[in-house]
Amino acid sequence: MKTYRLSDLENFDQRYRANFVNSLSGFKSVALVGTYDENKNSNLAIISSLFHLGAHPPLIGMIIRPHSVPRHTLENILSTKFYTINHIREEFYKQAHQTSARYDRDVSEFEATNLQISDISNKAPYVNESQIKFLVEYVEHQTLKVNDTVLVIGKIVEVHLPEEIIESDGALNIEMAGTITCSGLDRYHKTEELSRLPYAKPNIKIE
Amino acid sequence: MKTYRLSDLENFDQRYRANFVNSLSGFKSVALVGTYDENKNSNLAIISSLFHLGAHPPLIGMIIRPHSVPRHTLENILSTKFYTINHIREEFYKQAHQTSARYDRDVSEFEATNLQISDISNKAPYVNESQIKFLVEYVEHQTLKVNDTVLVIGKIVEVHLPEEIIESDGALNIEMAGTITCSGLDRYHKTEELSRLPYAKPNIKIE
Repeated sequence: MKTYRLSDLENFDQRYRANFVNSLSGFKSVALVGTYDENKNSNLAIISSLFHLGAHPPLIGMIIRPHSVPRHTLENILSTKFYTINHIREEFYKQAHQTSARYDRDVSEFEATNLQISDISNKAPYVNESQIKFLVEYVEHQTLKVNDTVLVIGKIVEVHLPEEIIESDGALNIEMAGTITCSGLDRYHKTEELSRLPYAKPNIKIE
Repeated sequence: MKTYRLSDLENFDQRYRANFVNSLSGFKSVALVGTYDENKNSNLAIISSLFHLGAHPPLIGMIIRPHSVPRHTLENILSTKFYTINHIREEFYKQAHQTSARYDRDVSEFEATNLQISDISNKAPYVNESQIKFLVEYVEHQTLKVNDTVLVIGKIVEVHLPEEIIESDGALNIEMAGTITCSGLDRYHKTEELSRLPYAKPNIKIE
Protein backbone atom coordinates (compact mmCIF):
# COMPACT_ATOMS: atom_id res chain seq x y z
CA MET A 1 0.00 0.00 0.00
CA LYS A 2 1.19 3.48 -0.82
CA THR A 3 0.17 6.59 1.12
CA TYR A 4 -0.37 10.06 -0.29
CA ARG A 5 -0.94 13.20 1.76
CA LEU A 6 -2.81 16.30 0.64
CA SER A 7 0.53 17.98 -0.08
CA ASP A 8 1.41 15.13 -2.46
CA LEU A 9 -1.87 15.60 -4.34
CA GLU A 10 -1.25 19.34 -4.53
CA ASN A 11 2.19 18.75 -6.02
CA PHE A 12 0.90 16.46 -8.78
CA ASP A 13 0.85 17.80 -12.32
CA GLN A 14 -2.65 19.13 -13.06
CA ARG A 15 -3.67 16.37 -15.48
CA TYR A 16 -2.17 13.64 -13.28
CA ARG A 17 -4.09 15.00 -10.29
CA ALA A 18 -7.36 15.19 -12.29
CA ASN A 19 -7.01 11.53 -13.31
CA PHE A 20 -6.05 10.44 -9.79
CA VAL A 21 -8.69 12.29 -7.80
CA ASN A 22 -11.48 11.58 -10.31
CA SER A 23 -10.81 7.87 -9.79
CA LEU A 24 -11.20 8.01 -6.01
CA SER A 25 -14.97 8.43 -5.89
CA GLY A 26 -15.45 4.93 -7.35
CA PHE A 27 -17.67 3.84 -10.23
CA LYS A 28 -19.92 6.63 -11.40
CA SER A 29 -23.42 7.20 -12.63
CA VAL A 30 -22.70 8.22 -16.21
CA ALA A 31 -25.37 9.31 -18.67
CA LEU A 32 -26.11 11.63 -21.58
CA VAL A 33 -27.98 14.83 -20.83
CA GLY A 34 -30.11 16.11 -23.70
CA THR A 35 -31.38 19.68 -23.97
CA TYR A 36 -32.85 22.15 -26.45
CA ASP A 37 -32.05 25.82 -26.52
CA GLU A 38 -34.82 28.39 -26.94
CA ASN A 39 -34.66 27.89 -30.73
CA LYS A 40 -34.97 24.09 -30.47
CA ASN A 41 -31.32 23.47 -31.32
CA SER A 42 -30.34 20.22 -29.62
CA ASN A 43 -27.40 19.65 -27.29
CA LEU A 44 -26.04 16.46 -25.78
CA ALA A 45 -23.42 16.14 -23.04
CA ILE A 46 -21.98 13.25 -21.06
CA ILE A 47 -22.23 13.70 -17.30
CA SER A 48 -20.64 11.45 -14.66
CA SER A 49 -21.82 13.19 -11.52
CA LEU A 50 -25.45 12.13 -11.28
CA PHE A 51 -26.85 11.09 -7.95
CA HIS A 52 -30.16 9.95 -6.53
CA LEU A 53 -31.59 12.58 -4.22
CA GLY A 54 -34.97 11.20 -3.29
CA ALA A 55 -37.86 9.01 -4.45
CA HIS A 56 -40.85 11.00 -3.24
CA PRO A 57 -40.77 13.40 -4.98
CA PRO A 58 -38.45 11.67 -7.49
CA LEU A 59 -35.39 13.92 -7.51
CA ILE A 60 -32.00 13.66 -9.17
CA GLY A 61 -28.93 15.82 -8.71
CA MET A 62 -25.90 16.50 -10.86
CA ILE A 63 -22.75 18.58 -10.65
CA ILE A 64 -21.63 20.76 -13.54
CA ARG A 65 -18.22 22.40 -13.57
CA PRO A 66 -18.58 26.09 -14.36
CA HIS A 67 -16.28 26.28 -17.36
CA SER A 68 -16.66 22.74 -18.66
CA VAL A 69 -18.24 21.48 -21.86
CA PRO A 70 -21.72 20.97 -20.39
CA ARG A 71 -22.05 24.73 -19.84
CA HIS A 72 -24.31 24.80 -22.92
CA THR A 73 -26.37 22.18 -21.14
CA LEU A 74 -26.72 24.37 -18.06
CA GLU A 75 -27.65 27.41 -20.14
CA ASN A 76 -30.31 25.38 -21.95
CA ILE A 77 -31.71 23.94 -18.73
CA LEU A 78 -32.06 27.40 -17.23
CA SER A 79 -33.70 28.61 -20.43
CA THR A 80 -36.13 25.76 -21.16
CA LYS A 81 -36.43 24.16 -17.67
CA PHE A 82 -36.26 20.59 -18.99
CA TYR A 83 -33.59 18.01 -19.78
CA THR A 84 -33.43 14.29 -20.53
CA ILE A 85 -31.12 11.78 -18.87
CA ASN A 86 -30.24 8.80 -21.04
CA HIS A 87 -28.39 5.70 -19.84
CA ILE A 88 -25.38 4.70 -21.93
CA ARG A 89 -24.92 1.23 -23.46
CA GLU A 90 -21.79 -0.49 -24.74
CA GLU A 91 -23.05 -0.10 -28.34
CA PHE A 92 -22.61 3.69 -28.25
CA TYR A 93 -20.25 4.54 -25.39
CA LYS A 94 -17.58 5.87 -27.76
CA GLN A 95 -20.11 8.25 -29.28
CA ALA A 96 -21.26 9.20 -25.77
CA HIS A 97 -17.67 9.99 -24.75
CA GLN A 98 -17.19 12.04 -27.92
CA THR A 99 -19.92 14.48 -26.76
CA SER A 100 -17.34 15.73 -24.23
CA ALA A 101 -15.39 17.43 -27.05
CA ARG A 102 -15.61 21.21 -27.08
CA TYR A 103 -17.98 21.67 -29.99
CA ASP A 104 -19.10 25.17 -30.88
CA ARG A 105 -22.47 26.29 -29.63
CA ASP A 106 -24.11 25.90 -33.05
CA VAL A 107 -23.02 22.26 -33.42
CA SER A 108 -25.42 19.59 -32.18
CA GLU A 109 -23.57 16.72 -30.54
CA PHE A 110 -26.35 14.46 -31.84
CA GLU A 111 -25.24 15.18 -35.41
CA ALA A 112 -21.53 15.29 -34.59
CA THR A 113 -21.60 11.87 -32.94
CA ASN A 114 -24.33 10.30 -35.07
CA LEU A 115 -26.68 9.62 -32.18
CA GLN A 116 -30.38 9.90 -33.04
CA ILE A 117 -32.92 12.17 -31.40
CA SER A 118 -35.99 10.31 -30.22
CA ASP A 119 -38.75 12.81 -30.75
CA ILE A 120 -41.11 11.59 -28.03
CA SER A 121 -41.04 14.90 -26.18
CA ASN A 122 -40.88 18.47 -27.40
CA LYS A 123 -39.43 19.61 -24.07
CA ALA A 124 -36.00 18.01 -24.44
CA PRO A 125 -34.39 15.57 -26.87
CA TYR A 126 -34.08 11.92 -25.88
CA VAL A 127 -31.34 9.64 -27.21
CA ASN A 128 -33.00 7.04 -29.42
CA GLU A 129 -30.23 4.46 -28.80
CA SER A 130 -30.74 4.62 -25.02
CA GLN A 131 -32.88 1.95 -23.33
CA ILE A 132 -33.51 3.70 -20.00
CA LYS A 133 -34.23 7.41 -20.29
CA PHE A 134 -36.24 10.00 -18.46
CA LEU A 135 -37.36 13.61 -18.65
CA VAL A 136 -36.38 15.90 -15.79
CA GLU A 137 -37.93 19.24 -14.88
CA TYR A 138 -35.54 21.79 -13.43
CA VAL A 139 -36.19 22.54 -9.75
CA GLU A 140 -33.24 24.60 -8.54
CA HIS A 141 -29.53 25.16 -8.87
CA GLN A 142 -26.83 26.71 -6.78
CA THR A 143 -23.16 27.51 -7.19
CA LEU A 144 -21.12 25.75 -4.49
CA LYS A 145 -18.79 28.40 -3.13
CA VAL A 146 -16.15 25.83 -2.23
CA ASN A 147 -15.08 25.52 -5.88
CA ASP A 148 -17.70 27.22 -8.09
CA THR A 149 -19.20 23.95 -9.35
CA VAL A 150 -22.94 24.07 -9.94
CA LEU A 151 -25.38 21.70 -8.28
CA VAL A 152 -28.49 21.20 -10.42
CA ILE A 153 -31.56 19.49 -8.94
CA GLY A 154 -34.47 18.25 -11.04
CA LYS A 155 -37.67 16.28 -10.71
CA ILE A 156 -38.23 13.16 -12.82
CA VAL A 157 -41.50 13.69 -14.69
CA GLU A 158 -41.49 10.97 -17.38
CA VAL A 159 -39.67 7.62 -17.65
CA HIS A 160 -39.20 5.30 -20.64
CA LEU A 161 -37.74 1.82 -20.21
CA PRO A 162 -38.14 -1.79 -21.36
CA GLU A 163 -40.90 -3.40 -19.32
CA GLU A 164 -38.97 -6.66 -18.91
CA ILE A 165 -36.34 -5.06 -16.67
CA ILE A 166 -38.90 -4.14 -13.99
CA GLU A 167 -38.86 -6.65 -11.14
CA SER A 168 -41.86 -7.48 -8.96
CA ASP A 169 -40.84 -5.03 -6.21
CA GLY A 170 -40.15 -2.13 -8.59
CA ALA A 171 -36.37 -2.57 -8.79
CA LEU A 172 -34.95 -2.12 -12.28
CA ASN A 173 -32.39 -4.53 -13.68
CA ILE A 174 -30.32 -1.81 -15.35
CA GLU A 175 -27.54 -4.30 -16.15
CA MET A 176 -30.02 -6.32 -18.22
CA ALA A 177 -30.85 -3.11 -20.10
CA GLY A 178 -27.16 -2.76 -20.97
CA THR A 179 -26.43 0.31 -18.87
CA ILE A 180 -22.69 0.80 -18.33
CA THR A 181 -20.63 2.71 -15.76
CA CYS A 182 -17.39 4.68 -15.83
CA SER A 183 -14.44 5.44 -13.57
CA GLY A 184 -12.04 8.33 -13.60
CA LEU A 185 -12.26 10.67 -16.55
CA ASP A 186 -12.33 8.26 -19.45
CA ARG A 187 -12.64 4.57 -18.49
CA TYR A 188 -15.84 2.65 -19.24
CA HIS A 189 -17.01 -0.65 -17.77
CA LYS A 190 -19.85 -3.08 -18.20
CA THR A 191 -21.06 -4.93 -15.12
CA GLU A 192 -21.69 -8.42 -13.84
CA GLU A 193 -24.26 -8.84 -11.09
CA LEU A 194 -23.11 -10.34 -7.80
CA SER A 195 -26.57 -10.44 -6.19
CA ARG A 196 -29.41 -8.50 -4.67
CA LEU A 197 -29.27 -8.54 -0.90
CA PRO A 198 -32.23 -8.53 1.51
CA TYR A 199 -33.12 -5.49 3.58
CA ALA A 200 -30.56 -5.46 6.42
CA LYS A 201 -31.74 -5.88 10.00
CA PRO A 202 -29.54 -5.82 13.11
CA ASN A 203 -30.23 -9.35 14.31
CA ILE A 204 -29.86 -11.15 10.98
CA LYS A 205 -26.67 -13.12 10.41
CA ILE A 206 -24.62 -12.60 7.27
CA GLU A 207 -24.38 -15.72 5.11
CA MET B 1 -40.79 0.42 -24.18
CA LYS B 2 -43.10 1.43 -21.37
CA THR B 3 -43.78 5.02 -20.34
CA TYR B 4 -44.43 6.28 -16.82
CA ARG B 5 -45.55 9.79 -15.94
CA LEU B 6 -44.90 11.57 -12.65
CA SER B 7 -48.46 10.72 -11.55
CA ASP B 8 -47.68 7.02 -12.08
CA LEU B 9 -44.59 7.28 -9.88
CA GLU B 10 -46.61 9.10 -7.23
CA ASN B 11 -49.19 6.32 -7.23
CA PHE B 12 -46.63 3.56 -6.71
CA ASP B 13 -46.50 1.88 -3.32
CA GLN B 14 -43.74 3.54 -1.25
CA ARG B 15 -41.30 0.62 -1.34
CA TYR B 16 -41.96 -0.03 -5.04
CA ARG B 17 -41.29 3.63 -5.80
CA ALA B 18 -38.09 3.64 -3.72
CA ASN B 19 -36.75 0.65 -5.66
CA PHE B 20 -37.80 2.08 -9.02
CA VAL B 21 -36.52 5.64 -8.60
CA ASN B 22 -33.29 4.58 -6.88
CA SER B 23 -32.50 2.49 -9.96
CA LEU B 24 -32.87 5.37 -12.41
CA SER B 25 -29.67 7.22 -11.51
CA GLY B 26 -27.57 4.34 -12.89
CA PHE B 27 -24.64 2.55 -11.29
CA LYS B 28 -23.52 4.27 -8.12
CA SER B 29 -20.38 5.14 -6.23
CA VAL B 30 -20.81 2.94 -3.19
CA ALA B 31 -18.40 2.90 -0.25
CA LEU B 32 -18.15 2.51 3.50
CA VAL B 33 -17.88 5.69 5.57
CA GLY B 34 -15.95 5.25 8.83
CA THR B 35 -16.19 7.68 11.76
CA TYR B 36 -15.42 7.97 15.45
CA ASP B 37 -17.60 9.76 17.95
CA GLU B 38 -16.05 12.09 20.53
CA ASN B 39 -15.32 9.05 22.76
CA LYS B 40 -13.58 7.14 19.95
CA ASN B 41 -16.46 4.72 19.46
CA SER B 42 -16.37 3.61 15.83
CA ASN B 43 -19.18 3.72 13.32
CA LEU B 44 -19.40 2.37 9.78
CA ALA B 45 -22.11 3.07 7.20
CA ILE B 46 -22.60 2.19 3.56
CA ILE B 47 -23.24 5.21 1.33
CA SER B 48 -24.23 5.09 -2.34
CA SER B 49 -24.43 8.80 -3.07
CA LEU B 50 -20.78 9.79 -3.34
CA PHE B 51 -19.68 12.08 -6.12
CA HIS B 52 -16.50 13.73 -7.31
CA LEU B 53 -16.68 17.48 -6.79
CA GLY B 54 -13.24 18.68 -7.80
CA ALA B 55 -9.57 17.73 -8.05
CA HIS B 56 -7.88 20.94 -6.94
CA PRO B 57 -8.61 21.10 -4.07
CA PRO B 58 -9.55 17.39 -3.98
CA LEU B 59 -13.21 17.47 -2.93
CA ILE B 60 -15.86 14.79 -2.58
CA GLY B 61 -19.57 15.16 -1.91
CA MET B 62 -22.17 12.83 -0.48
CA ILE B 63 -25.89 12.95 0.27
CA ILE B 64 -27.24 11.75 3.60
CA ARG B 65 -30.96 11.33 4.18
CA PRO B 66 -31.99 13.10 7.38
CA HIS B 67 -33.59 10.18 9.17
CA SER B 68 -31.61 7.34 7.63
CA VAL B 69 -29.14 4.97 9.23
CA PRO B 70 -26.05 7.09 8.48
CA ARG B 71 -27.34 9.82 10.81
CA HIS B 72 -24.77 8.59 13.39
CA THR B 73 -22.20 9.13 10.68
CA LEU B 74 -23.31 12.72 10.16
CA GLU B 75 -23.30 13.42 13.90
CA ASN B 76 -19.78 12.01 14.17
CA ILE B 77 -18.53 14.00 11.19
CA LEU B 78 -19.85 17.23 12.66
CA SER B 79 -18.29 16.33 16.00
CA THR B 80 -14.82 15.12 14.93
CA LYS B 81 -14.56 16.77 11.46
CA PHE B 82 -13.05 13.66 9.83
CA TYR B 83 -14.26 10.52 8.07
CA THR B 84 -12.81 7.76 5.95
CA ILE B 85 -14.19 6.52 2.63
CA ASN B 86 -13.40 2.89 1.88
CA HIS B 87 -14.04 1.17 -1.46
CA ILE B 88 -15.98 -2.09 -1.25
CA ARG B 89 -14.73 -5.38 -2.74
CA GLU B 90 -16.62 -8.55 -3.62
CA GLU B 91 -15.00 -10.34 -0.64
CA PHE B 92 -16.94 -8.23 1.89
CA TYR B 93 -19.91 -6.68 0.10
CA LYS B 94 -22.42 -8.62 2.20
CA GLN B 95 -20.82 -7.27 5.36
CA ALA B 96 -20.80 -3.80 3.82
CA HIS B 97 -24.53 -4.05 3.04
CA GLN B 98 -25.22 -5.26 6.58
CA THR B 99 -23.94 -1.93 7.99
CA SER B 100 -27.21 -0.44 6.67
CA ALA B 101 -29.13 -2.21 9.46
CA ARG B 102 -30.45 0.08 12.20
CA TYR B 103 -27.99 -0.74 14.92
CA ASP B 104 -28.21 1.13 18.21
CA ARG B 105 -25.85 4.03 18.72
CA ASP B 106 -23.61 2.05 21.08
CA VAL B 107 -23.08 -0.78 18.58
CA SER B 108 -20.08 -0.53 16.29
CA GLU B 109 -20.88 -1.80 12.80
CA PHE B 110 -17.25 -2.93 12.61
CA GLU B 111 -17.91 -5.47 15.36
CA ALA B 112 -21.43 -6.30 14.23
CA THR B 113 -20.29 -7.14 10.69
CA ASN B 114 -16.84 -8.46 11.54
CA LEU B 115 -14.96 -5.88 9.49
CA GLN B 116 -11.59 -4.85 10.93
CA ILE B 117 -10.50 -1.35 11.85
CA SER B 118 -7.20 -0.39 10.28
CA ASP B 119 -5.61 1.80 12.89
CA ILE B 120 -3.51 3.96 10.57
CA SER B 121 -5.21 7.17 11.61
CA ASN B 122 -6.55 8.34 14.94
CA LYS B 123 -8.91 10.78 13.21
CA ALA B 124 -11.29 8.21 11.73
CA PRO B 125 -11.35 4.42 11.39
CA TYR B 126 -10.33 2.85 8.08
CA VAL B 127 -11.65 -0.52 6.91
CA ASN B 128 -8.73 -2.94 6.89
CA GLU B 129 -10.30 -5.12 4.16
CA SER B 130 -10.56 -2.17 1.77
CA GLN B 131 -7.87 -1.68 -0.89
CA ILE B 132 -8.59 1.93 -1.85
CA LYS B 133 -9.38 4.21 1.09
CA PHE B 134 -8.93 7.81 2.00
CA LEU B 135 -9.34 10.24 4.87
CA VAL B 136 -11.64 13.21 4.36
CA GLU B 137 -11.73 16.44 6.34
CA TYR B 138 -15.16 17.99 6.72
CA VAL B 139 -15.53 21.28 4.82
CA GLU B 140 -19.22 22.17 4.91
CA HIS B 141 -22.72 20.79 4.89
CA GLN B 142 -26.15 22.09 4.05
CA THR B 143 -29.68 20.81 4.24
CA LEU B 144 -31.30 20.85 0.80
CA LYS B 145 -34.70 22.44 1.32
CA VAL B 146 -36.21 20.51 -1.59
CA ASN B 147 -36.41 17.33 0.52
CA ASP B 148 -34.33 17.80 3.70
CA THR B 149 -31.46 15.61 2.54
CA VAL B 150 -28.04 16.75 3.69
CA LEU B 151 -25.19 17.51 1.31
CA VAL B 152 -21.80 16.95 2.99
CA ILE B 153 -18.63 18.21 1.31
CA GLY B 154 -15.14 17.18 2.39
CA LYS B 155 -11.52 17.53 1.35
CA ILE B 156 -9.39 14.43 0.71
CA VAL B 157 -6.33 14.74 2.95
CA GLU B 158 -4.79 11.24 2.88
CA VAL B 159 -5.04 8.35 0.38
CA HIS B 160 -4.02 4.70 0.72
CA LEU B 161 -4.02 2.38 -2.28
CA PRO B 162 -2.01 -0.39 -3.95
CA GLU B 163 0.75 1.21 -5.99
CA GLU B 164 0.27 -1.19 -8.92
CA ILE B 165 -3.16 0.27 -9.81
CA ILE B 166 -1.70 3.72 -10.55
CA GLU B 167 -1.23 4.24 -14.28
CA SER B 168 1.41 6.48 -15.83
CA ASP B 169 -0.96 9.44 -16.17
CA GLY B 170 -2.32 9.22 -12.62
CA ALA B 171 -5.51 7.30 -13.47
CA LEU B 172 -6.35 4.54 -11.01
CA ASN B 173 -7.45 1.10 -12.19
CA ILE B 174 -10.09 0.69 -9.50
CA GLU B 175 -11.45 -2.44 -11.19
CA MET B 176 -8.05 -4.09 -10.74
CA ALA B 177 -8.26 -3.20 -7.05
CA GLY B 178 -11.55 -5.10 -6.86
CA THR B 179 -13.83 -2.10 -6.28
CA ILE B 180 -17.48 -2.93 -6.96
CA THR B 181 -20.54 -0.82 -7.75
CA CYS B 182 -24.24 -1.00 -6.90
CA SER B 183 -27.59 -0.14 -8.43
CA GLY B 184 -30.90 0.58 -6.81
CA LEU B 185 -31.12 -0.05 -3.08
CA ASP B 186 -29.57 -3.48 -2.79
CA ARG B 187 -27.99 -4.84 -5.98
CA TYR B 188 -24.22 -5.21 -6.26
CA HIS B 189 -22.10 -5.66 -9.38
CA LYS B 190 -18.50 -6.25 -10.29
CA THR B 191 -17.21 -4.68 -13.48
CA GLU B 192 -15.47 -5.60 -16.70
CA GLU B 193 -13.50 -2.86 -18.44
CA LEU B 194 -14.51 -1.89 -21.97
CA SER B 195 -11.64 0.57 -22.54
CA ARG B 196 -10.13 3.91 -21.70
CA LEU B 197 -10.92 6.48 -24.36
CA PRO B 198 -8.68 9.35 -25.49
CA TYR B 199 -9.46 12.96 -24.62
CA ALA B 200 -12.27 13.96 -26.99
CA LYS B 201 -11.67 16.71 -29.54
CA PRO B 202 -14.24 18.04 -32.03
CA ASN B 203 -12.40 17.09 -35.21
CA ILE B 204 -11.42 13.54 -34.26
CA LYS B 205 -13.39 10.70 -35.82
CA ILE B 206 -14.87 7.98 -33.64
CA GLU B 207 -13.44 4.55 -34.42
